[in-house]
Amino acid sequence: MSSDISPVLDQIDRDLPQALDRLTALLKIPSISTDPAHAQDVDAAAEWLMRDLATLGFDARKDATPGHPMVVAHGGAATGPHLLFYGHYDVQPVDPLELWHSAPFDPQIEDTPAGKVIRARGASDDKGQLMTFVEACRAWIAVHGALPVKLTFCLEGEEESGSPSLVPYLKANRDALRADIALICDTGLFDAQTPAITTMLRGLLGEEVIIHGPERDLHSGMFGGAAMNPARVLARILADLHDDQGRVTLPGFYDDVPELPESLRAQWDGLGFDAEAFLGAVGLGKPAGEADRTALEMLWSRPTCEINGMTSGYTGAGFKTVLPARASAKVSFRLVGQQDPHKLRAAFRDFVRARLPEDCRAEFIEHGASPASVMETSHPAFEAARQALTQEWPKPAAFVGAGGSIPIAGYFKSILGMDSMLIGFAKQDDQIHSPNEKYDLDSFHRGIRSWARIIDAVAKA
Amino acid sequence: MSSDISPVLDQIDRDLPQALDRLTALLKIPSISTDPAHAQDVDAAAEWLMRDLATLGFDARKDATPGHPMVVAHGGAATGPHLLFYGHYDVQPVDPLELWHSAPFDPQIEDTPAGKVIRARGASDDKGQLMTFVEACRAWIAVHGALPVKLTFCLEGEEESGSPSLVPYLKANRDALRADIALICDTGLFDAQTPAITTMLRGLLGEEVIIHGPERDLHSGMFGGAAMNPARVLARILADLHDDQGRVTLPGFYDDVPELPESLRAQWDGLGFDAEAFLGAVGLGKPAGEADRTALEMLWSRPTCEINGMTSGYTGAGFKTVLPARASAKVSFRLVGQQDPHKLRAAFRDFVRARLPEDCRAEFIEHGASPASVMETSHPAFEAARQALTQEWPKPAAFVGAGGSIPIAGYFKSILGMDSMLIGFAKQDDQIHSPNEKYDLDSFHRGIRSWARIIDAVAKA
Repeated sequence: MSSDISPVLDQIDRDLPQALDRLTALLKIPSISTDPAHAQDVDAAAEWLMRDLATLGFDARKDATPGHPMVVAHGGAATGPHLLFYGHYDVQPVDPLELWHSAPFDPQIEDTPAGKVIRARGASDDKGQLMTFVEACRAWIAVHGALPVKLTFCLEGEEESGSPSLVPYLKANRDALRADIALICDTGLFDAQTPAITTMLRGLLGEEVIIHGPERDLHSGMFGGAAMNPARVLARILADLHDDQGRVTLPGFYDDVPELPESLRAQWDGLGFDAEAFLGAVGLGKPAGEADRTALEMLWSRPTCEINGMTSGYTGAGFKTVLPARASAKVSFRLVGQQDPHKLRAAFRDFVRARLPEDCRAEFIEHGASPASVMETSHPAFEAARQALTQEWPKPAAFVGAGGSIPIAGYFKSILGMDSMLIGFAKQDDQIHSPNEKYDLDSFHRGIRSWARIIDAVAKA
Repeated sequence: MSSDISPVLDQIDRDLPQALDRLTALLKIPSISTDPAHAQDVDAAAEWLMRDLATLGFDARKDATPGHPMVVAHGGAATGPHLLFYGHYDVQPVDPLELWHSAPFDPQIEDTPAGKVIRARGASDDKGQLMTFVEACRAWIAVHGALPVKLTFCLEGEEESGSPSLVPYLKANRDALRADIALICDTGLFDAQTPAITTMLRGLLGEEVIIHGPERDLHSGMFGGAAMNPARVLARILADLHDDQGRVTLPGFYDDVPELPESLRAQWDGLGFDAEAFLGAVGLGKPAGEADRTALEMLWSRPTCEINGMTSGYTGAGFKTVLPARASAKVSFRLVGQQDPHKLRAAFRDFVRARLPEDCRAEFIEHGASPASVMETSHPAFEAARQALTQEWPKPAAFVGAGGSIPIAGYFKSILGMDSMLIGFAKQDDQIHSPNEKYDLDSFHRGIRSWARIIDAVAKA
């Protein structure tokens, strides 16, 4: 059976120019989902994908939602593992247009010192990525006449505008969409040589706290010394949130934080992550989290507390001797493991209230609460996919974490009851969401080959 | 000799209606110094005062400056103590005009539950106050033909617009203006029954500190945990500025802070200051300064450190998971005694730098540095004036402090080498700088009588 894959890979290599032509055609459609003026373009991209999947023999349709349509297609083998593939066909706006070196919807193949790239809005996020999977299927079908797995596509048109229709759609179509495992192609390589499967996504708890002191802003000469200054109270509270070792001091904060499994730690150590280079790229030099943790742990598997914003009193040019009536901060916690955002929200509010002098009161505003996503990597598809990726790329693939949140993985788990394999081939310098977005042809080519190998490996797992 | 004063007081009482007519005439001139459209009005007010002083026999003139003119007048006795009287004839703007119950430059006598008032812009700040002194002189001259002291007037027209011409004028006219002691009528009563001589004015040191961390704002998911957050660094620094007892922790901060003399402490205790009512008026309840000090000490004789403003990251509506590139705060210190603002500026900067992690740097912006003014109350004029005030008012007069700064007193000391007696009759509810400014007729009448008594007492001291 392992000979199944070789002719597929050969077909992918032969067909690459045509695959690029198809990607170019899709990239020419300006499917900017946040801009109502582009609603027809978003629909045109959905139509394009539905037709393309239909030509591959899929039962494809374009499902209307209150916003942009969902492209859903069913096909593949009648038996064997059932995969759900997710990608999105909408793109970010292109402003500021004057910073683009070529028109954002006129894709260009360019030579760069790091190799050829295709440059256009959506090249990396996410049209180029989602087409790696479509092209892998096309090659399988061209060579073998069929896929070795059962497959459902779910392609969204609202990812760049907050996915307002996604959750209701998933809930309304549970039975049609449920599969053994989801494949999400919207993440990146660990580095140019090292592929990655993201298995841990941090959750997020957002809180805004407003400390109220005097009824109105006071003159700091008339009242300074005798009147409680809420900015001083807030500074003390925010300072208290970390100890000298960089640990978050909320009581119970680390209760549900698991230690990294040894196997995962070994994989991460093997990645040779260069913390100095990572931080150096943004003008920093020293990992700032818990003193006894590596930088990768700080980013992927440890929870954080960050001040995202704070304001009080006079913040314009010059100086005003005002004693402010209020001081506020936006604080977020990145969550891992089984940390419960609702429990920690309560702990944060208790922490603040315990530090209020009698002349201050605290007001709180909720800004979201989502737990971490930790994939159940014991499903054999994970190890199969990791080995498949390792065969394609110069360096072994690793299960990695991601500091940010990718809500779709959480929804697949909570609504459809399945884990997700987040696999993608984007690079750090792809300039997604920025002018001059690009996707490396190496990402595109090896990406297609990677999915072909993964389909093969998962079918056999 | 003590009989000199009785006929003067009688004359004041008799002449009160005419004194009110003169004040009304002056208040009708809209001498708003910040508004170029009112430049001629400011000049008209100066002209009015110059002519009025000339009718009293003073050698009066209107000195041009780069801004509005200075009214200077010399007269009085050839011998005896030499007094310099300072007041200002310019007024604040009147916006928002729609909040006034009568036209701001059409003075009205009104009955209120607390007695009659004259309502107009400048009624209290400072035309009504400066006319209390002019009328006292008029009565003295009417009764005795001359004043018992040598007297120079210095009336400014730019006090409400930052006094840009004042210091150069004082420096250029040192010899003409130097006297034994200055009288400044631009402060208030301690309360409706208790007159006050302000003998301590706190100084002010203003600093802005900007903590720089990453080169640009970062995504708190991508970088949170590993990247140093300058808002966290700033919060720690600001929190460290006070200890648990409310003391400022800058090294050496209290070195040049004198203890309150026992005599002054006794006077202050006698004032029966109601800290609860003072703080209650602005929604607070508990003095927030050094735990072992009274509220009056916190306001008048103890130094402070206040956060006047702070900002970092995203401060708009909603939430952004940004890890900010910078965080800044405006911090001011009210200074007392011999505290040196330049030494403390250096101490503050050292304090900040000592708390910077290696990935942050601090930038500083100066916002002013003026030492405290502490009058040399051993000059016999102070005790003489205090006793004179005590004779006029229901409760004994006190030497008090002021939390804010009144720069003119410092300039008289540093440029002309003389102390100032700050005596005024304004009330807390006079609404200076606000719509519907007023001055109590009781303040005006007793104010004139007070100055007549002070002139008498100082002449004999």
